This record gives sequence, structure tokens and C-alpha cells, in this order.
Amino acid sequence: MDSFTKHILTQFQEGVLSIDQAEEKLKGFTDYGFAKVDDAREFRQGFPEVIFGANKTPEQIAGIFNHLVTQNQTVLATRVTPEAATEVCGLVPEAKHDPAGKTLLYKPDTYHLKNQTKKIGVICAGTSDIPVAREAEVTIEAMGHVCESFYDIGVAGIHRLFAQLEEIQSCDVLIVVAGMEGALPSVVGGLVSVPLIAVPTSVGYGTHLNGITSLLSMLNTCASGVTVVNIDNGFGAGYAASLMLRV
Amino acid sequence: MDSFTKHILTQFQEGVLSIDQAEEKLKGFTDYGFAKVDDAREFRQGFPEVIFGANKTPEQIAGIFNHLVTQNQTVLATRVTPEAATEVCGLVPEAKHDPAGKTLLYKPDTYHLKNQTKKIGVICAGTSDIPVAREAEVTIEAMGHVCESFYDIGVAGIHRLFAQLEEIQSCDVLIVVAGMEGALPSVVGGLVSVPLIAVPTSVGYGTHLNGITSLLSMLNTCASGVTVVNIDNGFGAGYAASLMLRV
Amino acid sequence: MDSFTKHILTQFQEGVLSIDQAEEKLKGFTDYGFAKVDDAREFRQGFPEVIFGANKTPEQIAGIFNHLVTQNQTVLATRVTPEAATEVCGLVPEAKHDPAGKTLLYKPDTYHLKNQTKKIGVICAGTSDIPVAREAEVTIEAMGHVCESFYDIGVAGIHRLFAQLEEIQSCDVLIVVAGMEGALPSVVGGLVSVPLIAVPTSVGYGTHLNGITSLLSMLNTCASGVTVVNIDNGFGAGYAASLMLRV
Amino acid sequence: MDSFTKHILTQFQEGVLSIDQAEEKLKGFTDYGFAKVDDAREFRQGFPEVIFGANKTPEQIAGIFNHLVTQNQTVLATRVTPEAATEVCGLVPEAKHDPAGKTLLYKPDTYHLKNQTKKIGVICAGTSDIPVAREAEVTIEAMGHVCESFYDIGVAGIHRLFAQLEEIQSCDVLIVVAGMEGALPSVVGGLVSVPLIAVPTSVGYGTHLNGITSLLSMLNTCASGVTVVNIDNGFGAGYAASLMLRV
Amino acid sequence: MDSFTKHILTQFQEGVLSIDQAEEKLKGFTDYGFAKVDDAREFRQGFPEVIFGANKTPEQIAGIFNHLVTQNQTVLATRVTPEAATEVCGLVPEAKHDPAGKTLLYKPDTYHLKNQTKKIGVICAGTSDIPVAREAEVTIEAMGHVCESFYDIGVAGIHRLFAQLEEIQSCDVLIVVAGMEGALPSVVGGLVSVPLIAVPTSVGYGTHLNGITSLLSMLNTCASGVTVVNIDNGFGAGYAASLMLRV
Amino acid sequence: MDSFTKHILTQFQEGVLSIDQAEEKLKGFTDYGFAKVDDAREFRQGFPEVIFGANKTPEQIAGIFNHLVTQNQTVLATRVTPEAATEVCGLVPEAKHDPAGKTLLYKPDTYHLKNQTKKIGVICAGTSDIPVAREAEVTIEAMGHVCESFYDIGVAGIHRLFAQLEEIQSCDVLIVVAGMEGALPSVVGGLVSVPLIAVPTSVGYGTHLNGITSLLSMLNTCASGVTVVNIDNGFGAGYAASLMLRV
Amino acid sequence: MDSFTKHILTQFQEGVLSIDQAEEKLKGFTDYGFAKVDDAREFRQGFPEVIFGANKTPEQIAGIFNHLVTQNQTVLATRVTPEAATEVCGLVPEAKHDPAGKTLLYKPDTYHLKNQTKKIGVICAGTSDIPVAREAEVTIEAMGHVCESFYDIGVAGIHRLFAQLEEIQSCDVLIVVAGMEGALPSVVGGLVSVPLIAVPTSVGYGTHLNGITSLLSMLNTCASGVTVVNIDNGFGAGYAASLMLRV
Amino acid sequence: MDSFTKHILTQFQEGVLSIDQAEEKLKGFTDYGFAKVDDAREFRQGFPEVIFGANKTPEQIAGIFNHLVTQNQTVLATRVTPEAATEVCGLVPEAKHDPAGKTLLYKPDTYHLKNQTKKIGVICAGTSDIPVAREAEVTIEAMGHVCESFYDIGVAGIHRLFAQLEEIQSCDVLIVVAGMEGALPSVVGGLVSVPLIAVPTSVGYGTHLNGITSLLSMLNTCASGVTVVNIDNGFGAGYAASLMLRV
Repeated sequence: MDSFTKHILTQFQEGVLSIDQAEEKLKGFTDYGFAKVDDAREFRQGFPEVIFGANKTPEQIAGIFNHLVTQNQTVLATRVTPEAATEVCGLVPEAKHDPAGKTLLYKPDTYHLKNQTKKIGVICAGTSDIPVAREAEVTIEAMGHVCESFYDIGVAGIHRLFAQLEEIQSCDVLIVVAGMEGALPSVVGGLVSVPLIAVPTSVGYGTHLNGITSLLSMLNTCASGVTVVNIDNGFGAGYAASLMLRV
Repeated sequence: MDSFTKHILTQFQEGVLSIDQAEEKLKGFTDYGFAKVDDAREFRQGFPEVIFGANKTPEQIAGIFNHLVTQNQTVLATRVTPEAATEVCGLVPEAKHDPAGKTLLYKPDTYHLKNQTKKIGVICAGTSDIPVAREAEVTIEAMGHVCESFYDIGVAGIHRLFAQLEEIQSCDVLIVVAGMEGALPSVVGGLVSVPLIAVPTSVGYGTHLNGITSLLSMLNTCASGVTVVNIDNGFGAGYAASLMLRV
Repeated sequence: MDSFTKHILTQFQEGVLSIDQAEEKLKGFTDYGFAKVDDAREFRQGFPEVIFGANKTPEQIAGIFNHLVTQNQTVLATRVTPEAATEVCGLVPEAKHDPAGKTLLYKPDTYHLKNQTKKIGVICAGTSDIPVAREAEVTIEAMGHVCESFYDIGVAGIHRLFAQLEEIQSCDVLIVVAGMEGALPSVVGGLVSVPLIAVPTSVGYGTHLNGITSLLSMLNTCASGVTVVNIDNGFGAGYAASLMLRV
Repeated sequence: MDSFTKHILTQFQEGVLSIDQAEEKLKGFTDYGFAKVDDAREFRQGFPEVIFGANKTPEQIAGIFNHLVTQNQTVLATRVTPEAATEVCGLVPEAKHDPAGKTLLYKPDTYHLKNQTKKIGVICAGTSDIPVAREAEVTIEAMGHVCESFYDIGVAGIHRLFAQLEEIQSCDVLIVVAGMEGALPSVVGGLVSVPLIAVPTSVGYGTHLNGITSLLSMLNTCASGVTVVNIDNGFGAGYAASLMLRV
Repeated sequence: MDSFTKHILTQFQEGVLSIDQAEEKLKGFTDYGFAKVDDAREFRQGFPEVIFGANKTPEQIAGIFNHLVTQNQTVLATRVTPEAATEVCGLVPEAKHDPAGKTLLYKPDTYHLKNQTKKIGVICAGTSDIPVAREAEVTIEAMGHVCESFYDIGVAGIHRLFAQLEEIQSCDVLIVVAGMEGALPSVVGGLVSVPLIAVPTSVGYGTHLNGITSLLSMLNTCASGVTVVNIDNGFGAGYAASLMLRV
Repeated sequence: MDSFTKHILTQFQEGVLSIDQAEEKLKGFTDYGFAKVDDAREFRQGFPEVIFGANKTPEQIAGIFNHLVTQNQTVLATRVTPEAATEVCGLVPEAKHDPAGKTLLYKPDTYHLKNQTKKIGVICAGTSDIPVAREAEVTIEAMGHVCESFYDIGVAGIHRLFAQLEEIQSCDVLIVVAGMEGALPSVVGGLVSVPLIAVPTSVGYGTHLNGITSLLSMLNTCASGVTVVNIDNGFGAGYAASLMLRV
Repeated sequence: MDSFTKHILTQFQEGVLSIDQAEEKLKGFTDYGFAKVDDAREFRQGFPEVIFGANKTPEQIAGIFNHLVTQNQTVLATRVTPEAATEVCGLVPEAKHDPAGKTLLYKPDTYHLKNQTKKIGVICAGTSDIPVAREAEVTIEAMGHVCESFYDIGVAGIHRLFAQLEEIQSCDVLIVVAGMEGALPSVVGGLVSVPLIAVPTSVGYGTHLNGITSLLSMLNTCASGVTVVNIDNGFGAGYAASLMLRV
Repeated sequence: MDSFTKHILTQFQEGVLSIDQAEEKLKGFTDYGFAKVDDAREFRQGFPEVIFGANKTPEQIAGIFNHLVTQNQTVLATRVTPEAATEVCGLVPEAKHDPAGKTLLYKPDTYHLKNQTKKIGVICAGTSDIPVAREAEVTIEAMGHVCESFYDIGVAGIHRLFAQLEEIQSCDVLIVVAGMEGALPSVVGGLVSVPLIAVPTSVGYGTHLNGITSLLSMLNTCASGVTVVNIDNGFGAGYAASLMLRV
């Protein structure tokens, strides 16, 4: 946790922070009563705290979002309702709302790509899985990385996969999003040699069990090199893929 | 049930059965105390009762097997232990034991193929799934039909599938046997235009849940024309595929 | 995939397609951004892509529906909401909407039955299971086949089954739709000698678990020749039954 | 609890019990350290405590069995291993061991039928379900009632059921034992007008889930008048059926 | 099925039915397209078909209800919405609506109690379980029997049970309705000597799993003589209890 | 139950109760038809009956609440809707409504803390878990005890935990509320030496299964001294923690 | 972690430890390669690390056991096989082996009761639950506390509970161990005013699901003040109960 | 698949392969009847096919193992029984058997590390989780990478984690292996900025459900950057981690 401490002390030494402010900052989080916003995360982990919008009121989201904006950080909120998006954009007009992926993204002036040669491929089995893919893509952008999308490539019409295989094989990390039987990561995984993150979605019905079937299928893949995240967790996949680009 | 009655009455008229035997036969089953052997099944459904060997003693299996042999029927027993196989083969030396598929098959002199132009393809994802495929294949033989086998064709090395695609596409009905993520029926189903019966197997570990994962995957396939049977139910798949050949 | 290529090249040779159009067509799908419509499916599998309406917007459904209509194909959409039906019928007035089964069907001038002597029986256990049966029946019509319906034939009043047994036994393939304990396929399966597709429905309460109970019951049937599809999957049953008629 | 107290005090008055013995007896149970044997059960509920043999050592079973024998009661032990049976029969040679149903029954001189006109029918779907049926039958005998057995009557060969329907309809209470899809109670329940206790068994494989499928099927029966007990609980069914005969 | 046939032929002989009507009636059910109303049930099972209102439209319910009323039978509908109740009562003003239990009952002039000395006790663990108890009570009334209610007797305040134990013990059959941990049948079952039907309810939260916990608890009761019905199935319990009174 | 009886008899002796009132009171509960309010609970268990508001109408809640207020007891209602809160506060203006925790609390003049030196720590993993923590805190207040809150202390930013460890270690009993992976009790449990009650919450998505994941995680903790309550059961945790303070 | 550091430094100052030994000790654990034995636990949490014997070899258990004995601590091992017990007792003859509870306990000379006036009651529903109760009792002894046992007190013979209610009510904390329907904690919990820890056991069959049913029942208890531990976790209950005595 | 073709053609051109051998090789797999060994995998994916030893006979494993050895490849077999290990080592004495991790590894002369500066950290929560960690470590070695192990670092004694935090933070990718509540990846994930693969193990009891609890916990982690593999899948984690090092 050294680099955060150093940063605060430097700011203090340079007069940016008063001694009281420095002391407060050194705690490493801002206490909003309902939430302790983790100010040290960017120093500790290379990325600021992300706001998980589900179960938070528009006011809570807007409050935390604005707090992080004023710290001149890249800010990402996920699972935001239209109401929350309106609330935040009223406060922070530069925030970009993606209704499909339900994300809000603010990029400060200092935003820049952390890597311009490597890219993450985001493959999506069906039209209904696109929102989860969008969440992953915006997360990757927030992390400072580049991605390329391949939509509606289901295993039951596998010629669509082979038609784009070369572009897919040129990616450095892959995210494969699929509902229903979740077979796409197995097929893709057997054709590439890069890390592949499988994202099960809740798209299906009956015995699909809201995504459990896709998840189980992915965990039991006979392709090597596949790891899995929670159902509909586009954010987690985008975040982990970005970390993999930095290894 | 007419044809069975006619058969018995004809045998009676021809003197093959005494009046007492005919009366007994007309009940439609032989009562062994622990089991009522369904003598009319072949007339009612075109195939004699099959002996499900699990949970039966070697003596019970041998008793029923022999009863059906003496009626000059094709006889099939599934899930037979080595002990039961020994017991039956001692009594009926012509019975053929398949240790991999755990089946016993007896074909009478009158055995003949019911269809010589159509065939059933049996595709198998992994080496460990072969026993289930074997159960299906012997059932198809017992039903009087022909099959062709395609083993060890997993989705994670999909070039093995394409290498044999033409032969696979020449089959009239397909049985696809797979454990693990059970994705093979989805891929094959998208490449063919014939009925496809998916058989999940219990081959896997951890979240495979003894075959539940393969089953769920197959039930949620995005390929059309796929129907599913119980886990490890090679017999059911072979039986249903044979019926489909007769439509 | 030969016949599709041949078809396109023939159209090109005959001047129906320009060289650019032919090149585009040879990719095998039309890319709508949110969906890649599989134009080659009818050539690959003998039936055009079916639109699964769940999770798609009325606009998306209408767009794909119209695309396929302009290709002079039979078009089927399932799981369509009343809103989507209105949208499609505004665009394609000849489309027939079945509110019970939630289907939309468009039959081009070239539509004709593919088989006039064989038929599929659709048996339905309870009044509440009818919507699933309807989805199967419209699918069979779309596939170019004929079906006959037998409604409200529950196992707890089994005389209703025997009252229609002869008609049922005259069908070439059977679809049995049932919720609750899902026992009907077992009883019917023991009385017929044709392939039987069991369709579990979500009709029930408490431990019915939204159809899981019916499904488990059908997978564990002691009748031979029964295969199963996903809960409420009338489409899948109708599609597979149609394929069986073509064996 | 009055009648028990009266009984003890009467024995005391008649000199059968000393004052110390009477005081001890009035507690209502004998304390064996590892078990408190419920001496008052026969007075409270009309039947002595039954020994559930699972998870008890042969010595513990034999100890409790003998204790109840010396009280001149009918004694029933269920789920007894061969070892426990040997132990008990060594101590109480009059005990009757049923290896199929895994029961031990001792009937004192005073044993007599409590009802000679009414009877309980025990119907059994498959050969492998017989052990559970046997447990029910011995329990009925221990309770002082009469039963009639109908074995191997599966729904997939329903003519076997109709062949015995008249005898079945003459029973006053029915117990229906079934594994696999557990459909038999639904079919029988629609043909009779008496209470029917359904007993799911663990006979099956794959998605049978050790009896869960049979249980769910029975709980969701569309036949009225059916109640259910735990998987393989032949004892519970026999006990409850006997109580029903006494209403 | 004799008595039904006799009844129809007698009506024909007496001129109540024309020859065409008699022929139609002998089929045993009236076909409404969406439903086959089982007219022979009262003769076959001693009670007319009950209308399960869930998943039926108000019009369908009212149609079947009225059909049965015109046959001068006792008519019971369960799981009726307020809308369906209004529809039916408009048509059949004599129908009695119980909003708590969601039932509709019509008793014809010929209605009479089938047994005046025996009664069924309906015990209810918590206030929220009352609707399920009401469904059972109205069913018992429809069947022509008498019941007595004992409400809000939870195991965590067991003195409330003992305060009414004598009345409870005077009942001939017991129905025990409970949500949460479902322990009441175990406690009551140990204090009585009559058949006890346990009804799990969906009242609870979290790990209650919509009634699964109560059900599992009841199936695993260590009290003998307890049988179980589906979650919230007050009708099934009332029906089975009534049959038990007739043994 | 002695102390309750004594209390009633004393009131009778002192003329506070008439002989009829005393007789009625000695029954130990007030019968409201839909509920038997347990008047003796405070004497039997040291705390009056708590009103579980879920599944009760505002009128029922207000009725019972007022009944207990008139007995001059501390009254707590949980899971109250805004409608029920309005109803109760109209009747009992002194009742304090906590909208976050969905509780209503009435403290009589005689209310006093039962222990002033010991306190319960309530730790909360995420912002969304606060409502459950609030339910626990109000329950502790109702029981006459003191608590201290520690909010938004997730394991993924563990420095927030260490920043408050000393205060946490000064508590006598701990309640740890967490959704998601439910890991916080394991970490805290390894750092303290007091009883720790873990409360899983339904906060999460996908495989969180409405709290099952948090619950399973807590039940399998490798920290000793941790016990668990039902999902979202803040009341149960607060009640049990208060009892622990009194040991 | 202060007191541990103080202890080591004091030992160093007093010459008990050399400077190298002190440095090593200050790490807080001894590294055995396969295990890091937590030497500071007694100082951090008031009790030494307990050896969970499952999945450890007899040699591993004996090694850690002996290590802790040489530190003159009370040592407890749970889930020890007979082989492991023999191995340990060969090395540490003073260790006491309880075959029923599968525990090994070593008490040093300095062992003494930490509280002589308060006691923990251990109630056990059935004979088969005793091993889990024993594990709890030995843990309580190891923690330096006193317990009293109440065995074979099932809810289906509730007079056995009332016969010992007074002794039970005199305990300061209760542990209630039950398999089957797990109802005992609900009944006991309604009769006492002390913390009650419910321990579900795996004793049952069929739908008992190896203890899941007992667990669910206990988590959904309507008695207040009940907390729950993992299935068969007698150790956890004994440990937590001991902590409660120290509050 | 170009590079494989090129490799074969080059070998042919150089005279290493005859024209027949080249033709055979170009198929891309060797057909052993029971298995198609994927010879092209190393070219397609940078690593030869790994032998999953479960459900294969010692003879099958030895056959495939030897086949790959003769191709001068690195060969890894997992889940090998002692019998299979003996069989293989008899044939290939240079194969190294790790009994803990149940692996067999053969490294040819050409084996070399693919990266000498980056390393993978393998963290293990408990002693019983070590076998799964070993499988990961040997896989990493087979892939040509380096790892560092951190054993027995459970969350309930979190000072053991902080004692080694600096070494852990110096790793480029982390694998965290944990059974029980599976909380370790959440805690570690919050302290590092590299990809973290969580491996749930089947170590636990009761509600641990053979690893399901650990898996669910890991999938629901509130730490970002965590991905998950199947229960006990050390191989999958090691393989994926190695791919991540190559990004």
C-alpha cells in the first residue's frame, strides 16, 4: 500500500493538501455513511473502484460517481437503471450512457490507452447476449484497452464462426459470451491459443435455470485454457481480460 | 392387441398349443412371481420385452432371458454384471456378451435385418463415453437395424468432426453420445438434417454432477431437431432411433 | 454446403444476381448488426432459420421476418408478444398470428405439403398445456407436414385415452405434451410402436418446480422409444417430429 | 396418557408391580442410555414403538427388541442388516426375519387381527420395488391387518393393471410402490375411490436422483386422494394405511 | 364403470334421455374443445370432477361450472381469481365464494352429509397458513363431511397446542397445515392415533424455498402415520381426508 | 410457566383483574381468530411476542400491535410495508418506523437498558446489506441492549476492516451481515474471540441464488465460533445476540 | 496480537528462549511444509488451533498433535479414524480417545475449568445423533467448560422432553442435535430463554438429503434465538457455546 | 492449421517422412480405435494433447503416453492411479510420477522454459487442498513455466497471508486453491493487481456439497479480476495461467 501513502504525502509536501486533509486522505477511503468509497484502489490495484449500480438509489450512485469524477479518475458504473443514468448525466454531463449494456463511463482528460498493440476479442453467441457483451466492452474501454466485437456466432451455424476465425485468432485474449447450452467457448477454445474467459448469460428458458446451464457447460468444457465468471458478469470478464493484457 | 390374440388362436388351431396353454397364453404375460414377463410386447410394439439387468439377481436375469429364448425371440439384456453374463451364457451359450456395453444379445435363427438401406450413425465425444455408445449399438442390432460408429470426436478438436462429416451426413438418424459439457449435439445438429438423439453421459467430475450438466446442455441446445434421453441411456437412444427408421 | 453454393452460382450465371451480390450471398448470412440471418439454412438443413421471438424487440423480429419473406421462404416466428405480432402483421399482412401458441407463420405461394400420407399426432394432457401443443402444431405446418390433435387426455381419467386409442395408433409419430406429473408419455408409449416425443410443460405448482418435475418424469419413463425436449419447447418437438417423418 | 397410567396402577394394585417398579414404569419409558424405549406408545397410540434399525448396532437392536418382547408386545424392527437379524434371532428365536424387506417381526401369543373384513392392497410397479412393498406388508401384519399384493404392474404395459383391476378395486386402502417415473399412482388413483398412499422408491438411474423423480411425480399427481411418504418408506405407508383402516 | 352405464341406460329407458343423448352420454365426458368434462367421475369415484381454476380463463371456469350445475351435482372450483368468482356468481348466484381459500362451492338441493358422527380436524400453524386450511375445509364440505378448525398453533408456543389437545384427539382424521420449518405434524403425530395428512405451505422466506423446506421436513417426520401432499395443496388434503372417513 | 401464573394471580389479588379477566388471562394467549397473541411470552422467555409483518394485512398488524401496546409492553414489528407502518402509526403515534429496516418499535415508559456495559457489534459488508443490519439493530434496541455499527467493510478492500479492528474487538458479541460470497464472517471470525452470528443476505445476482451462496459460505467457514441464521434474518441475529449478552 | 508478542518477548527476557528461537516464534506459526501450525491462536483467540482430522494422514495428525502437546497446551483433534487414534496415542499416551465422537483430547497439568457455575446443555433427538453430540461435549471439555447431556428426546414422543424440562431450563446455553425433520430446536426454543445452537445431522434417508432437510428446518425455525451450524458440526457448536459462556 | 501442414510437408521434403507417412500424418490425429490422439494440437495450440487419466485403463494411458513420447513431445497425464503410473513408468522410465497431484510428466531433451522472468504464484488455503495445487504446479512445469507455492494460508488466520504478501504480490499471475467457504480468492484478489484464477476444491463436509459451496463463493466474489475453473481442476488453472503468461 506504499504508493498510495507516497502519493498523499507528496501532495501534502507540495501543498496540494493541508495537514488535516492529508491525515483524512491517509485513511484510504471516504466515508459516505452508506458507503466507504475506496480512494486507494487505483494505487493499490491500478484501477479506481467501480460502482455496482444494482440495489443502489440513483442518488447514491450519482453521489459516488461525482466524488470519483472530482478526483479526476476514470469512473465506471454498471447495472444502472435509466433513472440512475439521468441522475448522473444531470450531474456529470460528460458521462457516457450505454443503455444496452446499462453502463455509465466518464473518462477524464488524462485518459489514454494503456496498450495500443494488443486487443481483446469479445465473441457473442446470440442477439440476446449482446447486453452482457456491451458491459464487457465498456469495462475494457474504462480499463484503457481495446476490443473487437464478433456478434451472433452460435454453434448451431458454425460456418459463421469459421468465416471470422482469422480475426478471432488475431486477438490476444478472448471473452466468449453465451446463453442457452453455452457451447461456444468449447468450440472456440479448441481453435485458439490465448486465454479465454467464458461468460454464461441468463438467456434461455425452462431447464436453462436462468443461466445455470450455460455456467455448468462452461465449467465442464473439454477445451483447455478456459476460465469462467458469474452469470451475466460482463464487467468481471472485461476487468479480468484487461488484467491479462498487462501480464 | 388383436394380432397377439390371433397369433395364439392360430397356434391353438394348428395344435401347437393345447387348450390350457392357449388360455394361459392369452393372459399376455407369464407370471414369475418376482416379474410378469410381457409375452405380448412383440405383437403390441414390434419388439419383445428387454431385460433391464440393474437391481436384478443373475438368477432372475437368466430365468427371464431363457424364457424369452424358448419363445424363439430376439432377446436383449442391458446393464448386466459379469456374474449375470456368466450365469446367462451358461444357460444360453449362443448369447453374445459385450463387456464394454454390459449387454447380452441372443439372435434366433429367424433374425433378419428389417431395413438394409437405412442406417443409424452413433457419434461419441470421448473415449470414456464408448460404453454408452456400445449399449446403443447392440440395441440397434437387436432391433434389426444397422449402425455406423464415429468415436472420440470432441468439440475441442473440431477438425476430427469435419474429417468425417460426409459419412456422418449420409446417416438417416444420428445418436450423439457426450459427457463433460455435452456440446457435440449442438455442433452436429447444425450440420445435418436428420433426427438427432442426444445421450448425456455421466463422464465428468466436479460440477458435472454425474451427467446433469451434459443433460442440461443438450436440452438447451440451439440446434433444432434434437431430442434427449436419460443420462447414460444408450438403450433408449438405440430403441428410439430404430423406431424412427421405421416411420 | 455444396447445394447452397450451387444455388447462388446458378442465380449468378442466370443473371439474377450481380457479381457483387453473388459474392455477398456466398457468405451464407445477412449481417443485421444485432443478428446474422442464416440464409443458407434452408439449403443446409431443408428449412429456413426460425425466429425465436423471446428477448427480441418487435422491430428486430419484424426486420428479420420481412427479410426472410422477401426471399420467398416459409417464415416462422415463435414466442411473439402481441406487440410483436402487430408489428409484423403491419409489415407482412399475410402472416398468420396464433395468439394461443404465440406464433407467426407466413407461407409463400410455393408452399406445399412435403408428405400427404403420414401424419403426426399431438396429444395434450390438460387444458393448460394447449399453448405448447399449438406451438408444435404450427411448427409442423411450417415444416410442410400434417398433424392431428388430441386434447385434455389426462392419465387420471384414462378412459378418455382409450376412447381415442385407435386414432392415436394410426399416427406415424407422436408428440405428447404434459405438465403436472408428466405421466402421459409413459402410458401412451406402452400402447404404440412409433417414435414418441415427450414435451414437459411448466403447468403445475409447488414442487412442480416450473416444469422440472414433468421433465424428470419423462426422462425416467419405463416406456421405450420416448425422447424428450426442453420444458414448454413445442417448437422443438414439432421440428424433430417433422424430421422423423422424412427419414 | 390416562390409559397408560391406569394400566400401571392396575398392575400395581394387582401386585404385578412393586411400588418401586410402578414408580419407574410411570415415567413412560425405559432408559437404556443410548435410547429411551417408549413403553407408553402402545397405550398412547395403539401400537408399540418400532425399532428403526438403520444406524444402530446389532447389539442395540437386539437389546431393544428383547426388552419389548419381554413386555409381551408385538415387536417390529425395520432396516435390519443380516448381522442384526442373526443377533436378534439368536436371542428371540420366534422372531421372523424377512430378508427381502429387511424386517424382523415378533408376534406374541395375544396377537390377533384387529379387522378381518377390510384389507389393504399393495401394488408394486417393478420387480426392483418389491423390497419396499415387503416392508409395507410386514408392517401391516404387525399392526394386525390384512393385505393383498399385486406385483410388477408397470404403466408401460398397462394391460397388466387392467387384468387385476377388479381385485384392486375391492381393497379398502391402497399402497402403490413405484420407482422410475412414478406414474402408477396417477393411473390407479383415477380408477379407484379409496385412499391411496404413494411410495416413491430409489429404483432408477441418472436423473432419477435416487428417488427424487418418483417423489416429485407422485406429489404432482393429477389424481385426487393420493398422499405420499418419504422415498423407500414402506414402513410409513404400511403404518398409515393401517391407521386408515381403523378410522 | 358399470354403475355409470346403468345410470345412463336407466335414464334412457325412463325416457329422460333420447337415444342420441344416451349414446352421447355413454362416452362418459362432454367435449368442450378446450376441455373434456368428466361426467362419469361421480359414478366412478363418488365425487364429480373438481375445477382447478389456475391457468383457466374466467369464461372457461364459468362454462364448466355451469355445465356441472345443470347436471345437479355438487360443484367445487379451487384457485379462482376474484374475476373468475364474479363471472361464475353472475351465472350461478347460489355459488358460495370464499375469498380467503379462493374457492367456489355450489351445493344442489340433494346435498347432504355423508357421515354425521365422524369429523376431520384441520390444524393450522400460523396466521398466514389459513388460506390453505380454508381450501381444505371447503373441499371437505363439498365432499359431504364435517370438519373442526384449530388455527395459529405453532410449535414455538406449544402450550397453545396442549390447550386444545383433547378436542384435537377427538377427531377421526387430521390435516395439519404448516409453513416455515413444518414441524407441527411431527409433534401432533406423536400425540394422536389417527391418520394425519401434512400440508406444507409456501409461507416463509430465504431458505424456505417457497415451501420445499416445509415439505422436506414433513416427509422426514419421525412420527408414524403421517402422509404428505404437494405444497399449498389444501384441496388434495381435504379430498384424501374425506376418502379416509369413508373407509 | 410459573412466573406468568403468579403475575396474573397477583394482579387478581390486587384487584387489577376481575375473576373473569384473571381466568381468561390464565389461558396465556388472546385469541383474535386469525391469531392467538402469546401474552405469556414475556414471562416465559423474557421478551414479548414479535409481530412478523410479512403476509399479514395492515389491519392485522395494527390490531396485534395495539393489543400489546395496551399491555404496556415493548412492541416490535418486522417486515412492515409502508402501508402497514402508516396504519400502525395512526393508531400508535409513539411507534417509531425505520423504513430502511422495515421495522416498527414502541418503547413503553418502563423501557430501560438491561445491560449498560456490554455491547453488540453489527458489521455490514456492503451498502446493499444495510437494511438487514438495521433490522438487527432495532431488534437489539427492542431487547434492551446496545449496539455499534460498522458499515461497508467488504473483504475485497480489507484495509477498511483493519482500520476499525480495535473497536470491533471491543464488542462482546458480533453480528456480521454479508451478501455476495459471504466471506466476511470467516475473516472477522479469525480475528476475534467472541460469539459471531453470521447473517447471509439476498444481495447478489446469477449464481448467488438469492442468498444461498452467502449462506453456504458461512456454514462452511473455517473460523470457529461462528453460527448462522436464515437469509436476510436480521431479527433472528439481533434476538440471539441479545440472549448471548444475558448468559 | 499484542499479548502473543508480549509472551514471546517475556520468555526471551527470562532466558526461556534464545534470540533465534524468539525470532522464529514471533512469526506466529510453525511451518511443517504441509501445514502452518498456528501457535498464536491461543493468545489471539483464547484457545489453541484444533486439528481437523478429516483428509489428514495419521502421521500428519500425530505430528501436529505432538507439536502442540510439547507447547503444554490443551490439544483437541476431531474426525480421527481409529488408525489416527492409535498413531497419536502411541506418541501421546495421555491423549483420551472417544471412539463415538471420533475425538482425541489431551489436557495438560495446567488444565482447569474456566467457569464452574455455568453449564451447557447438550440435547440429542435420536440414538443415531449421539456421535455428533459427543463431538460437541468433548469440545466443551477442551474449552474448559461443563456440559450436561439429554439423549434420545425426539419430538414424536414429546413427553420425554417435558420429563426433563426443568433440568434443561437450568442450562445457560443449549446445543440441540437432531437429524430427520430437525424439529427439536423449534420446540425447545419456544420453552427456554437462553441462546440455542441447532446442529443438523446427516441421520436420515431418502429426501433427508444427507442432512440438508434438518438444516433447512432449523434455519426456518419459528422459535427466536436459534442459530445454526453446518451438518454434523458438533465441534463448531461446542466451540461457539463455550464462547457464549464467556460473554 | 497452416503451421502443422507446413511442418509435415517440410518433414516429407526432408525425407523424414515417406509419402504414405506424410499422407497419414496430414489427417492430424492418430486413430487408436478407443481414441483419436490429436497430433496437431501442439501446432494448433502450442501444447500437445494432455491425457486425462480418469476413466481410462492403465493400458490405454500407457499407450497414448508412449505414442506422444515417441513424437518427442512433452507429455502430461493427470488423474492417474498408482496402477496406471506403474504401467507408464515401466514403459517410459523417464516419466516423473507425482503421487500427491496424481500426475505423470515426461520432458524431452528439447524441453526448455518458455519464459524465465515471469512466474505464477500457487496459493493453497488448507493442507487438504495441496493435491489440487500440485496438479496445477506440474501442469505449469509441463507448459514450460515457473511457479512459486504458498501453502496453508487460510482466511481464518489471516496473519499467515500478510506474512507472505510481498512475495505473493511479486507474482505475475495467481492461482488460489481453496475448499470450505472458498473465501481466500476474495481476500487475495483485493490485495493484488494481476489475473487471479480461483480453484474450488471438494475439501469440506455437509453443506459443502463436494465443492459446490467453494465454487459458488468464488463465482460471487466481490474482488475484481477473478475467474474460476471447475472443482478440483488444478490442471485447467495451471494451463490457463500459463497461457496468460504468454499474452
